[in-house]
Amino acid sequence: MTVNSSAPPALGADQCSIAASLGVLGEKWTLLVLREAFSGIRRFEDMLARTGAPRQVLSARLARLVDEGILRRVPYRETGQRQRTEYRLTDKGLDLYPILVALMHWGDRWAIPMAAPPVSLHHRGCGAAVGLQLRCADGHDLAGARDVQPRPADPS
Amino acid sequence: MTVNSSAPPALGADQCSIAASLGVLGEKWTLLVLREAFSGIRRFEDMLARTGAPRQVLSARLARLVDEGILRRVPYRETGQRQRTEYRLTDKGLDLYPILVALMHWGDRWAIPMAAPPVSLHHRGCGAAVGLQLRCADGHDLAGARDVQPRPADPS
Repeated sequence: MTVNSSAPPALGADQCSIAASLGVLGEKWTLLVLREAFSGIRRFEDMLARTGAPRQVLSARLARLVDEGILRRVPYRETGQRQRTEYRLTDKGLDLYPILVALMHWGDRWAIPMAAPPVSLHHRGCGAAVGLQLRCADGHDLAGARDVQPRPADPS
Repeated sequence: MTVNSSAPPALGADQCSIAASLGVLGEKWTLLVLREAFSGIRRFEDMLARTGAPRQVLSARLARLVDEGILRRVPYRETGQRQRTEYRLTDKGLDLYPILVALMHWGDRWAIPMAAPPVSLHHRGCGAAVGLQLRCADGHDLAGARDVQPRPADPS
């Protein structure tokens, strides 16, 4: 037997939560649109200018994110203008934040050519740098994957 | 001015750590190959069987991950067989773990159709469930994105 006997069961794409997340988030530009949403950018033209996404692609990605319940459309109207639409994160969308933080921190460390990250994250309350910590429900901090045991839901 | 004035600067793809991470990880199957690597699966034929990726695609993804320094090739030989190659995570690869955990937890909650997640993560030391906690360097736990302020590296 060549497979690591402690490995969790092989999961089909319809069972795997990572695959399911990627199915929603994995299209090119989608996470960059969400980066903008988390930066407080809510309007189509602003997202277009900031991401550099092609207009048709941005439009399709926003429609998909609304369909998925990650963004919601909110109408607004500026004086003398026709009604337009803003895009705001739902609770399902706000829950994506750790994914963006994890991607950003790994990129800061390993994937960008610059010596210093272009943006850093700080606690609004105290100003200290923000990171993600692996922690168990009993309050222990974990160093990484080697401290984690995956368990199938059904041990039979 | 329509752009949220507290938004961080718009970043080109070559400056953004999220985009840089996605440039490495965003190809279809890549994160599922890494899921297998974190589960202790090291051999091509095992990854092929467990992910369901097409052979040529798996081969290309593994080669890219080796080129990126995320996996390294290690030769092994079983009795009576020719020498073969295993794939093991490097430090750069092991650092991807929070990304996989964040994708898994979001998928558990929002993207899979099942009531209960198929796999759960536990602390090897005490058995308690493992999660990711946003925390600042001064030790404060943060509830989410609203507690975080992004700051450009160069405030000028």
